Amino acid sequence: MLWQDELCRVVLVGDRDYPGFCRVILNRHVREMTDLDTVTRERLMRVVYAAEQALRELMQPVKINLASFGNMVAHLHWHVIARFADDKHFPGSVWSEARRPGAPRPVDRAALRRALHRLLQAVAE
Amino acid sequence: MLWQDELCRVVLVGDRDYPGFCRVILNRHVREMTDLDTVTRERLMRVVYAAEQALRELMQPVKINLASFGNMVAHLHWHVIARFADDKHFPGSVWSEARRPGAPRPVDRAALRRALHRLLQAVAE
Repeated sequence: MLWQDELCRVVLVGDRDYPGFCRVILNRHVREMTDLDTVTRERLMRVVYAAEQALRELMQPVKINLASFGNMVAHLHWHVIARFADDKHFPGSVWSEARRPGAPRPVDRAALRRALHRLLQAVAE
Repeated sequence: MLWQDELCRVVLVGDRDYPGFCRVILNRHVREMTDLDTVTRERLMRVVYAAEQALRELMQPVKINLASFGNMVAHLHWHVIARFADDKHFPGSVWSEARRPGAPRPVDRAALRRALHRLLQAVAE
């Protein structure tokens, strides 16, 4: 767990190939973004953008990937993934066929937690 | 082309396996959501949600998938995909390995265009 409030939580997925893979999970059970009211959608996305920003600052990825599928578990959650040109699937999605063994970049979990708290504090103010 | 304004455009991808696969493409060249200011992000996402809503109304998919990767073309765009339990990759992502031949649902392009215009008109007012 990296961050949480009454709306959602941010967790580090713990993917060996993608240490900088975060998930933003809505606390209540909702299937689709359009099942949320506009204000709640925007609040959730601010957390997704904070995760993106924190990963960019700490890892300098070549690209951020954002995705909300929920095909297996139809409970709203967002994948936020730091991508690198030499990672296991680049330029494919992390759900595509692997292209190489990959070169996982470590991420400083405490620094990621601090960055999220700082970025989301700024939003709350 | 289904819809456009000065910020972005919505196109039907024309994927044979996923007739209800739309793409929302930012007009100007930007890499990441966090490269946009907050207001522009929200405006872009409103178009993404309108595409989601239009696809839900017209196709009643089991799930909507949203994704912004940009690994191949680092120009901000969103995939909005209507998913069905018997489609080619379900419950995998459409970028995962195919599970079956799939049973593409046709989509009424004119109705989709009308739905988008209606939903985005409401937002503009």
